[in-house]
Amino acid sequence: MADTNALEGLTQAFRKLPGVGAKSAARMAFHLLQHDRPGALQIARALDHAVESIRHCALCNTLTEQEVCVTCANPQRDRSKLCVVETPADQAALERTLAYRGLYFVLMGKLSPLDGVGPNDIGLQKLFDRAVPRNAQGQLLPAESREVQEVILATNFTAEGEATAHVIGQALKSRGMQVTRLARGVPVGSELEYVDLGTIAHALTDRR
Amino acid sequence: MADTNALEGLTQAFRKLPGVGAKSAARMAFHLLQHDRPGALQIARALDHAVESIRHCALCNTLTEQEVCVTCANPQRDRSKLCVVETPADQAALERTLAYRGLYFVLMGKLSPLDGVGPNDIGLQKLFDRAVPRNAQGQLLPAESREVQEVILATNFTAEGEATAHVIGQALKSRGMQVTRLARGVPVGSELEYVDLGTIAHALTDRR
Repeated sequence: MADTNALEGLTQAFRKLPGVGAKSAARMAFHLLQHDRPGALQIARALDHAVESIRHCALCNTLTEQEVCVTCANPQRDRSKLCVVETPADQAALERTLAYRGLYFVLMGKLSPLDGVGPNDIGLQKLFDRAVPRNAQGQLLPAESREVQEVILATNFTAEGEATAHVIGQALKSRGMQVTRLARGVPVGSELEYVDLGTIAHALTDRR
Repeated sequence: MADTNALEGLTQAFRKLPGVGAKSAARMAFHLLQHDRPGALQIARALDHAVESIRHCALCNTLTEQEVCVTCANPQRDRSKLCVVETPADQAALERTLAYRGLYFVLMGKLSPLDGVGPNDIGLQKLFDRAVPRNAQGQLLPAESREVQEVILATNFTAEGEATAHVIGQALKSRGMQVTRLARGVPVGSELEYVDLGTIAHALTDRR
């Protein structure tokens, strides 16, 4: 075995990456040092640059280099709709559909009590303040004077994503906000025979 | 989508890692920036430190922070045996067996003509000079005055690894060196029913 603490340290560091275990981390370290040292330095510089320059959008929480991200700053977007997603990657998936012209709010993850992730950890208060702001006297603005008229819940259709959507939906409805959820149903291009029963049941219930 | 060149640059940089495609790279970048910025900086520092301090052992080519690695510098190792492996990871696997007390020579990969990897790219000349040195007059040393008496080929049992072993074996035999290859056979603990035919055929041929 190579007798180096530097290599051991690099292997340990790579294990910080999601989905990378001991063997993958060692392979990555060996590969870069044996075959791609310029690539190793490129990754180091990109990490430094990203950590230094990327922050969260003041309005929607997504990752950006500006105070306010391009989506929130775009005057062409429909400011009456606010779509709640778990991560910037989910936001990117929705953007690629070209089917949505409203704004977003990016949670910092999803509620996960077992992992100790509560409402404060995923910025729910920021979302509530954004969707249903208060006036100078601390009272909730009435519906007609709010910018956001509809909140679309687009958290993932996992147990934790559904729970997160439920909590947000209840809180916003109690503040008088119209709340919708992405439709559940049969994926485009799929054959019923291979679709799971829960999905088919939902598609039946929500038929149109 | 997050509107940042820094994030795009980081995602591109992660694709330099072996086995990491566009989706994994994006997930890694998002994860570090959202949940583990100290981890991101730790990876950057580990990369810088490793690139700066790790080089190849002057004798065996493995990765080390010294001029000569601990294995080559160890006076207890049997200097008459030289085991040729493709990578430091393969060397580590052999060391873990505790079954070998000789020295190593670590190639910089394997011969792979289709990828443009020829004998010079994997340090074969360095291996030949090490195993069968020349005297001051440029003549090959006779067998009795050589340090290395046996070269054990432990490249992988893949098509490219076998080809590499063949090329090295031919060259060293023509210089009068004793060359052996790791035994092929049935893995310890396996049932014949599930072992592939090529392996069983080799195990029959090499029976002892």
